[in-house]
Amino acid sequence: MIFQPSGRRGEVSKGLTILEASRALGVDIETLCGEKKVCGKCKVRIEEGFFEKYGVQSSLDNVTEWQVEEEKFITAAQKEQGYRLGCCAKVDGDLLIFVPEESRAGKQVVSKAARDIPIEWNPAVKYYSVKVVPPTFEEPTADLERILEQLNGQYGLANLDIDYLTLKKLPERLREGKWEVTVAVWMDKEIIRVLPGKVKDYYGMAIDVGTTTVAAYFCNLATMEVVDTVSMMNPQCKYGEDVMSRITYHMMHPDGLQKMSDDIIEGLNTLVTRACEATYPPKKKKKKKGDMEETGAAKGKKHYLRLSPEDIIDMTIVGNTAMHHILLKLNPEHVGLAPFPPVVHKSLDIKARDLGINVNKSAYVHVLPNEAGFVGADNVGVLIAEEPYKKDEVQLIIDIGTNGELVLGNKEKLISSSCATGPALEGAQLAFGMRAAPGAIERIKIDLDTHEVDYKVIGRDAWKTYSKPEEMETKGICGSGILDVLAELYRSGIILKSGKFSPQQKSKRFRKNADNGQPEFIIAWADETSIGKDVVITQKDIRQIQLAKGALYCGCKLMMRRLGVEKVDKVKIAGAFGTHVEREKALIMGLFPDCEIEKILSVGNAAGDGARAALLNREKRNEANWVARNVEYIELTVERDFQTEFMQAMQIPHMKDSFPHLEGLVPKEILSQK
Amino acid sequence: MIFQPSGRRGEVSKGLTILEASRALGVDIETLCGEKKVCGKCKVRIEEGFFEKYGVQSSLDNVTEWQVEEEKFITAAQKEQGYRLGCCAKVDGDLLIFVPEESRAGKQVVSKAARDIPIEWNPAVKYYSVKVVPPTFEEPTADLERILEQLNGQYGLANLDIDYLTLKKLPERLREGKWEVTVAVWMDKEIIRVLPGKVKDYYGMAIDVGTTTVAAYFCNLATMEVVDTVSMMNPQCKYGEDVMSRITYHMMHPDGLQKMSDDIIEGLNTLVTRACEATYPPKKKKKKKGDMEETGAAKGKKHYLRLSPEDIIDMTIVGNTAMHHILLKLNPEHVGLAPFPPVVHKSLDIKARDLGINVNKSAYVHVLPNEAGFVGADNVGVLIAEEPYKKDEVQLIIDIGTNGELVLGNKEKLISSSCATGPALEGAQLAFGMRAAPGAIERIKIDLDTHEVDYKVIGRDAWKTYSKPEEMETKGICGSGILDVLAELYRSGIILKSGKFSPQQKSKRFRKNADNGQPEFIIAWADETSIGKDVVITQKDIRQIQLAKGALYCGCKLMMRRLGVEKVDKVKIAGAFGTHVEREKALIMGLFPDCEIEKILSVGNAAGDGARAALLNREKRNEANWVARNVEYIELTVERDFQTEFMQAMQIPHMKDSFPHLEGLVPKEILSQK
Repeated sequence: MIFQPSGRRGEVSKGLTILEASRALGVDIETLCGEKKVCGKCKVRIEEGFFEKYGVQSSLDNVTEWQVEEEKFITAAQKEQGYRLGCCAKVDGDLLIFVPEESRAGKQVVSKAARDIPIEWNPAVKYYSVKVVPPTFEEPTADLERILEQLNGQYGLANLDIDYLTLKKLPERLREGKWEVTVAVWMDKEIIRVLPGKVKDYYGMAIDVGTTTVAAYFCNLATMEVVDTVSMMNPQCKYGEDVMSRITYHMMHPDGLQKMSDDIIEGLNTLVTRACEATYPPKKKKKKKGDMEETGAAKGKKHYLRLSPEDIIDMTIVGNTAMHHILLKLNPEHVGLAPFPPVVHKSLDIKARDLGINVNKSAYVHVLPNEAGFVGADNVGVLIAEEPYKKDEVQLIIDIGTNGELVLGNKEKLISSSCATGPALEGAQLAFGMRAAPGAIERIKIDLDTHEVDYKVIGRDAWKTYSKPEEMETKGICGSGILDVLAELYRSGIILKSGKFSPQQKSKRFRKNADNGQPEFIIAWADETSIGKDVVITQKDIRQIQLAKGALYCGCKLMMRRLGVEKVDKVKIAGAFGTHVEREKALIMGLFPDCEIEKILSVGNAAGDGARAALLNREKRNEANWVARNVEYIELTVERDFQTEFMQAMQIPHMKDSFPHLEGLVPKEILSQK
Repeated sequence: MIFQPSGRRGEVSKGLTILEASRALGVDIETLCGEKKVCGKCKVRIEEGFFEKYGVQSSLDNVTEWQVEEEKFITAAQKEQGYRLGCCAKVDGDLLIFVPEESRAGKQVVSKAARDIPIEWNPAVKYYSVKVVPPTFEEPTADLERILEQLNGQYGLANLDIDYLTLKKLPERLREGKWEVTVAVWMDKEIIRVLPGKVKDYYGMAIDVGTTTVAAYFCNLATMEVVDTVSMMNPQCKYGEDVMSRITYHMMHPDGLQKMSDDIIEGLNTLVTRACEATYPPKKKKKKKGDMEETGAAKGKKHYLRLSPEDIIDMTIVGNTAMHHILLKLNPEHVGLAPFPPVVHKSLDIKARDLGINVNKSAYVHVLPNEAGFVGADNVGVLIAEEPYKKDEVQLIIDIGTNGELVLGNKEKLISSSCATGPALEGAQLAFGMRAAPGAIERIKIDLDTHEVDYKVIGRDAWKTYSKPEEMETKGICGSGILDVLAELYRSGIILKSGKFSPQQKSKRFRKNADNGQPEFIIAWADETSIGKDVVITQKDIRQIQLAKGALYCGCKLMMRRLGVEKVDKVKIAGAFGTHVEREKALIMGLFPDCEIEKILSVGNAAGDGARAALLNREKRNEANWVARNVEYIELTVERDFQTEFMQAMQIPHMKDSFPHLEGLVPKEILSQK
């Protein structure tokens, strides 16, 4: 089964709906009603014919028969072309399925999932199998030299070192393998593992240490396959939500750096353990040996990899400069003070054992380089994943995390900067802000006429319209919902360009708070929540978000001025935390300068993708070091007119003429507000 | 004050005798009577004149006046030439003193002292001072890159890595030094220390891990000066005296390797601590700060270096293959079993922290390469110290430790082998054998006519003849005495060539043991001992020593056959343990094939000197790797005629014609025994 255009493929069992199959293969298809067959959003097209490239004979005969519910959403002409609803059609054979743009949930930034970016196979660690002859009186050469000779002869690997801990295991492994071993070589320089016999698969982990979220891609280094993606909250959150508060924590507490570093290292070790545990059969069935029968989606035998942390033989890490420094116990104090010098730019190769990271003790951890100021290895990750320095077009890449990071340019020149978006875009510091957890509003729609509200919460597929109030169990608004809320409030005229609530309100949802007299707008009524009170957005909330969006927009604008461009050719939105940013909403809000909507792309966790690229291709590490030193860093706060630009940028969208592409998205009468 | 020919020099206070001064400067001058002015052995010659080379105005006026005791030993002609007794003449000004051959105690192998061998300054670690400009908004470059740029610009050091632990300290050190730091760079590759300000002196340690003794040279890497020499028993001795018994211990105990390794590591750490402690003022005077006044030999201000283990920034280690493997926790089992393959030949650079060695945590420990079988890094040390591969003459180098190691050859070809001399030459397994400790007989003379015995014990300068019996407090015979005893027994006709006691005995010292009827010879009467019984040498003892000397001789002989030489041009005796081998005695015993006595040289702890050379000159490390792979290793036990040669070699000296140089050393009638 293959999904286009993502190219994701895999075996799925017959009888699954196409929607279920898409989830199993990591393809995101839109669904509003929670598969009740009533919203029609999950339209897909079954391709007919034999597709030589994939070796697939796909046909409408390979799905179950037409259902009456589909008539409402699919026209006769579409039916002719092979359209079906993903929630109705079930798999009954080989299929090539095209997911049309409007059905793709993937147009949102799905934060930490691994994307398909093209990576050439050239990992820093490679496995080599060698066979040696046993020692004799004539040739009593040592174990190591025996192997080195073969590695040189067979693979041209000369002057190899060997990690001390690996050397200790060498004599046993060599004899266990009856003089045949597989040797892991790091960067053609150092032997870091010796295993008896022939071993094909080996593993590594690429990690994105975000201020709020940590994500790890567990990869097979031989096949480049992502075995698993695991993530967790950054355990340092308890010391402060943003980078500055963590740096302050370090400055106020003599053991602050140690504690924060130990916590994140422990966090990484938890991710490693979790990823490895997932390669074993579930514990209940532990008694059975060998392959296990599956009960879930994919029936039939499943091969469990049964990996241990020792099997993780390489690791790459990205993170902003503060996360980078704190993880490595490098004093982050100076990067927090003007002129913000980091301790180090260049990438570092540190033995996992020296960092206390529980993977193979001989493995190196490759920490990607920092650019400047807070623009760290995470942004370098974004750059090597997106490669704007190879393009003619001028790209603006926005990585919206707790700290906003901006890159602008093309192969001629690249500049970067960071802006303090603050935690508002992540839902923090708002009246009903919350993290991306079940019950958090992540999408919203406000009817232009009635100003009625429809929304969706995390953990529930069906929108409110398709649900009973008590089914929603709403708790608050998460980062992904924030922009939606504000954009819809503006689009529907509930708030003005200035961010203030309009004096004319049609809906009962607007009120002044009984306690403080502040205006607020009710998103979810108390009976839809699990917290027993109305979930509202207040005037103060709106100000917070305006500050954040203003910082971003102003940053983009000043960078464009610095680069001398009037217009960017492409905007890429990378999300380092759990936010899903819908590009229309971002444009409506004026998060960044105007751009054709088709040229606004969500690139997901590009920082993590960059870490993965550096894990799978050593050349990407060189590229990273090169680009880190060749991006010109702009300290925005000392740019001319910073304050003025910032104040202006807080308007939603602050100048009509600058946003021609908003027409169609926002009613004309709203856009032409004074 | 300068001593010739050793060239040792230094400041000493007026009023010291020349003997006392010689000790203060590490020059060994013979003394038998314990400075009672009665043996006349400490003759030296005062050189007269101005010696431009040294900037010394030396004159007989610069010593105190002639004493009556000197008349007995110094002829009028000698007096004219400037001869004095070292125990009588006292220092009273600048002096250049020549120590004649017969007065040099240095003609014996003084095992662990550092010799003056020519070493070119090129240590693996070098210090570089740099000054950088503080960061600004225009140049907010990171701390590390700021320094790297300077190191590259000023010293041409490019692409440097930095040790992770060093990096952690960098920001503080840089600011502490007000943007001036001194950086330790290892092998032009890696920064391993950053110190604030300008630092000139830095330190390293060269270590010789012998089976029995461990010696460490604490060196100033900037000046090449040996700051101190510290040594100790190998703490592994409790697991077995020789390498095979230690390997056996490992094979019989699952935690044996761990325990033995931990013990030697702890031992090395003790040496490090001791060496560092010696750079502080004695504890009693701890309250005083700054320079201390000296009470002992060298009056005036003494500058204490006040070094800590962290100041030791480089370390080199040599040891035989078994010591090498056990120290590094490399399984030594296979090197103990035919065909004796080691785990590794090549030199290793291991972080001190990975080995648990308490020097600077970022420092590397350089372990020299192994040759083959038991001929390990210690012999490589001997080779790079003696450099026979640079000479035309055919050298035979014998390193007599618990395991004998032999090298033969010249720049054309070098071969090496080891022979199981066993512990007899070290005094072990003999009736009254003991370690080189106070009370151990280390020198002996037997009167050819009366067969009366004179001897000297460790810890007492005066020979028995010059002492009262009860002053001797003799306990046994140490390694250094063993050869002396046997050579003297043979020379005086008490034992025959075969090693058997002669049927004709003149002395009351010969008797049959009351308990077992075995013949024995009394060296020290009970009243001269602290153990209350006669110290004897038994027929069995003699057999043990014959086995040892036979193994050595036979090894040399077989190697000469293999190399196709009839005669060696030079014999060098290196001692890895506390033995003092007198060359005449070694020749009399037939430890090695005949050689002109002037061509027999004691080279002291050449293995340790090699470690020191590798510490002070990185090129020596390459040379070591090269020579380790270019010495051909001969497994003696599988050589043709090994058994026959071995049996023959047990005779003392086994063939008259082979030892023309014995004439004069041994009475003719003894030599012509059948």
